[in-house]
Amino acid sequence: MAKINIAPVSGFPEWLPGARMEEQRLIDVIRQNYELYGFAPIETPAVERLEVLFSKGGMQKQIFSLGRPTEDEGGETLGLHFDLTVPLARYVAHRSNDITFPFRRYQIQKVWRGERAQRGRFREFYQCDIDIIGRETLDVIQDADIVAVIHSTLQSIQGATGGKLPNYKIHLNNRKILSALFAAFGITGEAIAEPLRIIDKMQRDGKDAAKSALGKAGFSSESIAVILDLASCTELNEARSLLTAVNANLDGITELEQVVQHAENLGVPVREKIVLEFGIARGLDYYTGTVFETFIEGKKGWGSICSGGRYDDLASYFTTRKFPGVGVSIGLSRLFDLMVQSSILETSRSTPTDVLVTAQDRSRYLADYLGLARTLRDAGINTEVFLNDLALREQIAYASNKGIPLVIIAGSEELSENLVSIKDLRHRTQERIPGSEMVKYIQAKISAR
Amino acid sequence: MAKINIAPVSGFPEWLPGARMEEQRLIDVIRQNYELYGFAPIETPAVERLEVLFSKGGMQKQIFSLGRPTEDEGGETLGLHFDLTVPLARYVAHRSNDITFPFRRYQIQKVWRGERAQRGRFREFYQCDIDIIGRETLDVIQDADIVAVIHSTLQSIQGATGGKLPNYKIHLNNRKILSALFAAFGITGEAIAEPLRIIDKMQRDGKDAAKSALGKAGFSSESIAVILDLASCTELNEARSLLTAVNANLDGITELEQVVQHAENLGVPVREKIVLEFGIARGLDYYTGTVFETFIEGKKGWGSICSGGRYDDLASYFTTRKFPGVGVSIGLSRLFDLMVQSSILETSRSTPTDVLVTAQDRSRYLADYLGLARTLRDAGINTEVFLNDLALREQIAYASNKGIPLVIIAGSEELSENLVSIKDLRHRTQERIPGSEMVKYIQAKISAR
Repeated sequence: MAKINIAPVSGFPEWLPGARMEEQRLIDVIRQNYELYGFAPIETPAVERLEVLFSKGGMQKQIFSLGRPTEDEGGETLGLHFDLTVPLARYVAHRSNDITFPFRRYQIQKVWRGERAQRGRFREFYQCDIDIIGRETLDVIQDADIVAVIHSTLQSIQGATGGKLPNYKIHLNNRKILSALFAAFGITGEAIAEPLRIIDKMQRDGKDAAKSALGKAGFSSESIAVILDLASCTELNEARSLLTAVNANLDGITELEQVVQHAENLGVPVREKIVLEFGIARGLDYYTGTVFETFIEGKKGWGSICSGGRYDDLASYFTTRKFPGVGVSIGLSRLFDLMVQSSILETSRSTPTDVLVTAQDRSRYLADYLGLARTLRDAGINTEVFLNDLALREQIAYASNKGIPLVIIAGSEELSENLVSIKDLRHRTQERIPGSEMVKYIQAKISAR
Repeated sequence: MAKINIAPVSGFPEWLPGARMEEQRLIDVIRQNYELYGFAPIETPAVERLEVLFSKGGMQKQIFSLGRPTEDEGGETLGLHFDLTVPLARYVAHRSNDITFPFRRYQIQKVWRGERAQRGRFREFYQCDIDIIGRETLDVIQDADIVAVIHSTLQSIQGATGGKLPNYKIHLNNRKILSALFAAFGITGEAIAEPLRIIDKMQRDGKDAAKSALGKAGFSSESIAVILDLASCTELNEARSLLTAVNANLDGITELEQVVQHAENLGVPVREKIVLEFGIARGLDYYTGTVFETFIEGKKGWGSICSGGRYDDLASYFTTRKFPGVGVSIGLSRLFDLMVQSSILETSRSTPTDVLVTAQDRSRYLADYLGLARTLRDAGINTEVFLNDLALREQIAYASNKGIPLVIIAGSEELSENLVSIKDLRHRTQERIPGSEMVKYIQAKISAR
């Protein structure tokens, strides 16, 4: 046999069933929350034309292009999508006459990036995106609804970990605030990219590095002091005073204030969950208003687990029509991996089976065992029958290895009296009950977990 | 702006939200059934090494290979998986020490094939696979469990269409039966590939073509008569007599009989749902025992919507250890597309939202509307607030366009008296009720659907 490397390719995560069950459970939790807030699912192909993927710029080096299979005669060059935003833009531009705006959509799919594989950097990973897309206009209150759905989703994820995931904080800003300050110092248009980049990097590189970089970028030392004061302030009124003092435009402050207030009306406990951070810029060209990042307390190394913001024009590469939007993305695979590594998620149960029906003396009783399984499945109870011919001890070991909580044992004695013995592997108990009570007994056991 | 083609690439299906919701619902139904029968989820990367994908043979021409992104320094040549069986084989070979056998797994993922795009032939599509994998041995009763889970799943899919999907029939055979007959006529080993191919094609090409092809393949006219009799017979006893008459081995008959009997014990209504069809061969080298196909009555053009069988050695390309298995796959995208085309599925509702909270005089009452949405969402009711500033008429048109069944209207009068009006867009009714009864009222409306 030729030696074929059978490990999954590095950077392409692949879990054992126990972990995959947990990942799937988190996806369900996220989906449920997105639907609770009225977002509709879409799915776009993994494959797009390269010209579509290249439209955004900056990502060319990370795109996996596709080779042409011999049987495929088409003339187009294709690649795998690297995010869900470019496909959304294409979708909205293409379907604008078939969808009703504001268009609230969610999309939970894998994306691919040809980055060098390293810990926590996947080349294939799940993104869980929601966006609200308007036609021509989109009210700023929508930004508050995005904050609310993210709060609700993270709350549920925390619940799904049994509270093991520490508290999260949603960090909010509005890009217009920094822009207004730069404008007050005479820096406008494309020239704001450089100071934005410096502010973005400040958390990593420190205040002194930012100071000297801003100096090189042409800001006076008085201006730099104001910029750094803003970047380190966390109160709306303080930020407003700083901007007012230099006659800067206050639109961003007003928007941010509205977003916070409406998020509170929508049920977000603002004091506990929202942090205003005026130094967040997030990317350079894309976002135009509200921006947010989300951090887990005590997990600074995880970075932002959920980020997004407001953009003025989603689909400018694909259409002349204007589609403003606001959205956010959870990088699920990375968050999931971090939670598994930190034992925040429990992955020891490797099957959805709740009950294993064991089998003894199959030549006589097999039909009985299959009948028990049928009864349990008809009642909606996840059930397996042990169908390989092994000793009872080994059948119970199988259940124990897979984390199946309940085992049914019925030997000739039980079967002749229409009884079953039910072994609870977690509580190490065993009871013998009438067959007619089996379904009720097991349902009670399952719902007690 | 450069003219970019923004339609999805041909052969890569992309649905509007209403259809995607239905596709997602079907996937949920399938998942639930697979878990009911104790199958655990796994997911393998979309991307495999080409040497892994090429191991099976015969598919090279349809594989999408990947170009190397500039930033990716690895030296491996990669491609997109074309099915879920080759990845399962690699997974089992790689993880055999970490998983418990028999390994019952399901896998619902997209696969990619570079076929020429044509109606009903997708280049990206969902497969929904289940397999039971043994180590060294796997009891034939497991085949019956696969028949049972497929019956249960198709029953649920039928239910999800409100009974609009016509009756399905699971066609069963055992590859050993045809092989035994050929062996009785002196054709064994690799030489059986040709007559198997002829029998497989008979349904399409007709009996006469099969007759002459079998003659060319060296069978006597007496042998041909027996083969064609077997291929057209549908009774186990009749098939047994045919084989007995020529002293053929009866192992296949015995296995098939067991599978049918145990499927019945597991709750499959054999008379209504199972058809024995001794002419099914399904592929040439892979299956070694039980084989099945599934057809929808009156939809012959749809072909088999769900096929599979027993194989002796899943992972022979990747390991010297022996892993026999039995499994089946639903080609979901194709089935879904056919059901939508035939109006078996209803795709007019394009959002999961159950309630739209409309907004009037937002400058005064916005907080009230957001509060109503919060109350509904806290009760688990899928809710949107209308947040663009438009006339009430247009807000109701929005709900109607999206298929949102319920609309809450609360003007200054209602709000001052703590009332809400609830408009039911399906039944064209409107009632005014106390705000405190809103959640209960709406939950009753939703569960009445």
